[in-house]
Amino acid sequence: MKNFKFYNPTKIIFGEGTIKEIAGEIPREARVLLTYGGGSIKRNGVFDAVQSALSGRTVDEFGGIEPNPTYETLMRAVEMIRRGGHDYLLAVGGGSVIDGVKFIAAAVPYEGDPWEIVQSYGAKIKKSLPFGTVLTLPASGSEMNNGAVITNRALNAKLPLAHPSLFPRFSVLDPKVTYSLPPVQIANGVVDAFVHVMEQYMTYPVGAKLQDRFAEGLLLTLVEEGPRALTEPENYDVRANLMWCATLALNGLISAGVPQDWATHMIGHEMTTLCGLDHARTLAIVLPALWEIRSAEKKEKLLQYAERVWEITAGDEQARIDAAIARTREFFKSLQVGTRLCDYNLTEAIIPTIVERLKAHNMTKLGEKRDVTPELAEAILRQCL
Amino acid sequence: MKNFKFYNPTKIIFGEGTIKEIAGEIPREARVLLTYGGGSIKRNGVFDAVQSALSGRTVDEFGGIEPNPTYETLMRAVEMIRRGGHDYLLAVGGGSVIDGVKFIAAAVPYEGDPWEIVQSYGAKIKKSLPFGTVLTLPASGSEMNNGAVITNRALNAKLPLAHPSLFPRFSVLDPKVTYSLPPVQIANGVVDAFVHVMEQYMTYPVGAKLQDRFAEGLLLTLVEEGPRALTEPENYDVRANLMWCATLALNGLISAGVPQDWATHMIGHEMTTLCGLDHARTLAIVLPALWEIRSAEKKEKLLQYAERVWEITAGDEQARIDAAIARTREFFKSLQVGTRLCDYNLTEAIIPTIVERLKAHNMTKLGEKRDVTPELAEAILRQCL
Repeated sequence: MKNFKFYNPTKIIFGEGTIKEIAGEIPREARVLLTYGGGSIKRNGVFDAVQSALSGRTVDEFGGIEPNPTYETLMRAVEMIRRGGHDYLLAVGGGSVIDGVKFIAAAVPYEGDPWEIVQSYGAKIKKSLPFGTVLTLPASGSEMNNGAVITNRALNAKLPLAHPSLFPRFSVLDPKVTYSLPPVQIANGVVDAFVHVMEQYMTYPVGAKLQDRFAEGLLLTLVEEGPRALTEPENYDVRANLMWCATLALNGLISAGVPQDWATHMIGHEMTTLCGLDHARTLAIVLPALWEIRSAEKKEKLLQYAERVWEITAGDEQARIDAAIARTREFFKSLQVGTRLCDYNLTEAIIPTIVERLKAHNMTKLGEKRDVTPELAEAILRQCL
Repeated sequence: MKNFKFYNPTKIIFGEGTIKEIAGEIPREARVLLTYGGGSIKRNGVFDAVQSALSGRTVDEFGGIEPNPTYETLMRAVEMIRRGGHDYLLAVGGGSVIDGVKFIAAAVPYEGDPWEIVQSYGAKIKKSLPFGTVLTLPASGSEMNNGAVITNRALNAKLPLAHPSLFPRFSVLDPKVTYSLPPVQIANGVVDAFVHVMEQYMTYPVGAKLQDRFAEGLLLTLVEEGPRALTEPENYDVRANLMWCATLALNGLISAGVPQDWATHMIGHEMTTLCGLDHARTLAIVLPALWEIRSAEKKEKLLQYAERVWEITAGDEQARIDAAIARTREFFKSLQVGTRLCDYNLTEAIIPTIVERLKAHNMTKLGEKRDVTPELAEAILRQCL
């Protein structure tokens, strides 16, 4: 096992009817900016529940944070706060709204060009405004970590950042608020959480048996509950399990003491900015293809995954690995998520641009061994066809 | 799944050679009281490593905190701090030293009789001194939670307390410092962690699939690594897995959203104060006996445990439950830990006193359904013979 630090001070408030508890978490004298996305929270009752919980406080709104939140949009919120003097932020939404509020929280007190925050992957942050979240979409895990991914439309860049000051003070997770989500968003969320686990699990063994068991526990639960979340959209326990899985998939727990990959994410980010493909769909395409190209380097873990998650024990090693990759693609397909570029009418014509952009964003040594070069990324992308 | 709150701000610093990192965690101007137990830290290099990391700070010592730390001993540290003006505590030891420092941290600023802190199970605490820990014995999980168990020798009482102000600010977990532990302490630690998991897992199902998987992951890892920790005492990964298991067994994660039992612990506490039996040994005696008496109420989880941890799938339900209980006793015995009162030359003569003491300590409605009465506790104790 590798040495590690684990620190995660976010308070989770989980369960039905818990939105009202934000009243106890945000100071009474706070000047709150409530941020949200496309406005579904105004139709499903979440906005009203939040407003009711915050009654008595000054609350302004900033809506319209888009999927893959952009620097351009978020800077408008930064300017609004600098004018309005808000001192507490509340993100009500999914990963994009929460990622967005993290950038806003860091950018408001930042002296200098706020894009430097993203360019430095967060290293230049000195302090951030406090913020909480009300999660409406289980997927990204952003509600219990200190990372974010921000898109710069002008630069065609989608880049990650992280900083110790960017943990939410609290996050409210009420599984019932997910009942009204469109199936496509639930499916994307399951895939997103599943691939988050894989980026921290499917590397090489370092004797970290408990982290492996926890990762496999997340995968088994996502495999069991993901399809049920689509067929039984108002099954509370299914939605609760999915929500807690998505949070614990990326809160630092299963990555403690183990190597991490993240090449699938970095290649997928370029696919999203170039083609507009949903984040989760890029992951469902790249992950199995990457495994096929990297099966020798990931052999031990692929075999362990085959046995413990899919109960594949028959056949030689290559046959078991092939079967595990096939079962993974079938799982994504069972959620109506395509696993090939052709499923989205994309061809090899996009590959050179993706490879060029990886180079432009310094993504030239990806993966757990830093050996996924642009050439190897190209081979992986050809495997996605 | 039940509604829950999860909050755990303890920073974990894990791995070989990490004791030096406490220098970055304790303020330079702090006046530190270093607390420890029997003094083994002065023979195995841990004390020197801590002193070296703290050089430049005022550091006083308070040694001699005993297993099952007593109010009487701890109050001497409280008086020492009130005289000396220490403002940061550092516990260097196992669960007893860490539990002890939690009581000290709460008692120093407490206005009134400090025993009220324990009598109220922590409810009367208003604030606590900050403290960190250097863990030397993986077992109790106290290094990453806000609970403690304190013994009052004069009152023959061993009682639990907890408070949000009692999370360690940081805990250093270096698996190498456990190499020199006597085998009996390692064995006790494995049993302690195993039964901590069981108190949160072996109840009744509430559809919390991920919590179940995480609990099973802890159990499987303890079953794999526990015996190896005895036969391969300097296998780093084995000791690392054991240490991380013991911490995550009782940090609030696997109890989130599920019912908890803890009857085994409460009965075991009385056994320790009456007979001087090691804490873990009381648990190894009571747990299987409690399951035998409560197998109808715990049927679903016992069957799940049988299948997922011991791969027991043959036979009817009762046969599988019996086999799982038998395997559990064998596991404890493989660690040289007895599972019957007679293994410690104890007879039924002790049972009436234990039952009386449970009544005296208001432990009259134990278990996940609060239906373990003193009469039922007596039946469980007879099953321990």
